[in-house]
Amino acid sequence: MNNTHSIIGYYSTPFGELWNKSLDDLILEAFEGVLKVTALEKEDIDAVFLGNMLGGVVDDLLLLSAHVAELTGLHIPIYRIEAACASGGLAFQSADEYLASHPESTVLVLGAEKMTDVGAREITQALAAAASADEQSVGLTFPGVYGLLAQIYLHKYGYTEEHLASISVKNHAHGVLNEKAHFRRYVTIDNVLESPYVAYPLKVLDSSPISDGAAALILTNKNTLVKTHASAMILASEIATDTISIAKRKNLNSLEATRIAAEKAFDTAHVERKDVQLMEVHDCFSIAEILALEDLGFWKKGQGGARAREMSTSRDSGSSLIVNTSGGLKAAGHPVGGTGIKQIGELYLQLTGQAGERQVKTASVGLAHNVGGSGGVAVVSILGV
Amino acid sequence: MNNTHSIIGYYSTPFGELWNKSLDDLILEAFEGVLKVTALEKEDIDAVFLGNMLGGVVDDLLLLSAHVAELTGLHIPIYRIEAACASGGLAFQSADEYLASHPESTVLVLGAEKMTDVGAREITQALAAAASADEQSVGLTFPGVYGLLAQIYLHKYGYTEEHLASISVKNHAHGVLNEKAHFRRYVTIDNVLESPYVAYPLKVLDSSPISDGAAALILTNKNTLVKTHASAMILASEIATDTISIAKRKNLNSLEATRIAAEKAFDTAHVERKDVQLMEVHDCFSIAEILALEDLGFWKKGQGGARAREMSTSRDSGSSLIVNTSGGLKAAGHPVGGTGIKQIGELYLQLTGQAGERQVKTASVGLAHNVGGSGGVAVVSILGV
Repeated sequence: MNNTHSIIGYYSTPFGELWNKSLDDLILEAFEGVLKVTALEKEDIDAVFLGNMLGGVVDDLLLLSAHVAELTGLHIPIYRIEAACASGGLAFQSADEYLASHPESTVLVLGAEKMTDVGAREITQALAAAASADEQSVGLTFPGVYGLLAQIYLHKYGYTEEHLASISVKNHAHGVLNEKAHFRRYVTIDNVLESPYVAYPLKVLDSSPISDGAAALILTNKNTLVKTHASAMILASEIATDTISIAKRKNLNSLEATRIAAEKAFDTAHVERKDVQLMEVHDCFSIAEILALEDLGFWKKGQGGARAREMSTSRDSGSSLIVNTSGGLKAAGHPVGGTGIKQIGELYLQLTGQAGERQVKTASVGLAHNVGGSGGVAVVSILGV
Repeated sequence: MNNTHSIIGYYSTPFGELWNKSLDDLILEAFEGVLKVTALEKEDIDAVFLGNMLGGVVDDLLLLSAHVAELTGLHIPIYRIEAACASGGLAFQSADEYLASHPESTVLVLGAEKMTDVGAREITQALAAAASADEQSVGLTFPGVYGLLAQIYLHKYGYTEEHLASISVKNHAHGVLNEKAHFRRYVTIDNVLESPYVAYPLKVLDSSPISDGAAALILTNKNTLVKTHASAMILASEIATDTISIAKRKNLNSLEATRIAAEKAFDTAHVERKDVQLMEVHDCFSIAEILALEDLGFWKKGQGGARAREMSTSRDSGSSLIVNTSGGLKAAGHPVGGTGIKQIGELYLQLTGQAGERQVKTASVGLAHNVGGSGGVAVVSILGV
């Protein structure tokens, strides 16, 4: 029995405003795409894990497992996982758990979201369902939640909006190289600072967009498949949870779920922070990437603003740790159920030397960090080659 | 390592129109209730699986994992599973999978639904999200889907509405004995036949109600806990899937997902149909129980109408197989995420001699059958003592 779980293939649709694609179109494209790149047949798949947040909310589509069954003609176990913006990461984590008790198995993990069929106000309200009822009732949408986190952070550690803006500048520069990205253009600090406020101190260009898209991975513990495919090992995938209400948290300059999931993941993976050369972190807003690097244990608490301003995790920095080579949620786009899968997929491509023009130099360990809501759920996964 | 997974406790809120309870109230009552009956502390729980269909749809509540985290103060893995009306059954199946790779672990499985905060039209539309977009768009709600299945069945095998009505008469009689049931009153064949049509040939009294409620189970593979609690073994829990659209099915006098899940479950459990003395099946409409008994392999195809009319699975029949001692979805109520957990819970109470005034004579093997939508997902679980 092979106790190693490996990723042997990845496919993503473009992320963006895909007016001519339905949720089912996106699911089918990702499903067929990942089978094609791995040269597998659908009959090779033992189970499917589907991450999706807004089925039933922005449209009238629930029981998405049966959508997958219909689109593929399969009758196998199919699970729809919902954990808000961590739905994709949690689908991956669940698939990894599945392999632990199913030797000689192959699982397809898919994340998909169709967000642009409704207007800005409606999608903002839909996303706010991942906040507590009390906080929703006073109008605290997600830009508002992260705006509060940003205000606290800037005030406590004496940083400015420029420090936040650096995150977007870096991630947009990375996204230019990603052919599937929602946005492929450079932005400057001034562009960010001059963009309209969404929720003080966060502006449009501090914020990830509303995107459509789907992404899929094939995971296996079959030696025969690992040998015949470019593969990355899953060293760990861990979830932690926290209160739905930010008012119930002990402090607001840290996401406790990220901290706990990271500790568990590093324990499981038997690697150190210094071994990680590549990360995809959950930059739904610029402040979120700064908090992530601190909470994951890479930057000391309060140092993040300065490190961000130095562009210390840019691919051009010469640093030993590069963050969000995909462009992050900010530039690659954020089809919420798809994001967690895209993060893992980006690591897989980079670690196996398949990242094309955005390929970084040798990297052997990567970490993905996916957050639901304001940190009610966090999933941290570590891959290695 | 103990490879046996056991249920060691069950708690359910009342099912019904619980105007004074929110979704969070129901979740908390079930969570605390099952800890109390098992004399466990929340710190004894390693993971939570929560079945819920309509979070985000009839209210603005997603990321329910973080609701559980907030209500309990836990940071452990919590998974929200959505598979329409099979959400509870699939949460149970997922928890059973989890135990397979987590020795010495204890898991809390919870199903909850709050349905009565919106009107009849809105809840009917919300439930229709478990039908295909095409079928929804022509107005095919779930009473309509099951009405079609009933018409085909009656026509093909020469049965009448009286045959269907017998299912409701039996399940209402069983429900009278269930102190948690939504309805505790007898109905007669004439009552059913005289009730208003919902979707020909199904009438109000052929249909399960819209209910609020929550139920929870504790599952463990720890010998120490099994020894100190009344326990039932999980012999199998299997899921199968099928098309979301009924128009894409090969035939409509059978639910293929039920057939496949049942075959897998009997293979895994190493028991025969004749060994099963007790079942909880998914009688969302009277026709569904007839199809279930046939598709699960207990009645020959086409004989179900006659067997139903004979009341052959009534607790008073002296039969070796009694079905829906809880009252089924019809009388016990159908808070959709809660139903799959209540089914398993009823079997657990009966198999361990804790069913009070509705206790049946000795039963050692029970089967639960939970369906999502019109059979897009089916979960079949077998318990034994």
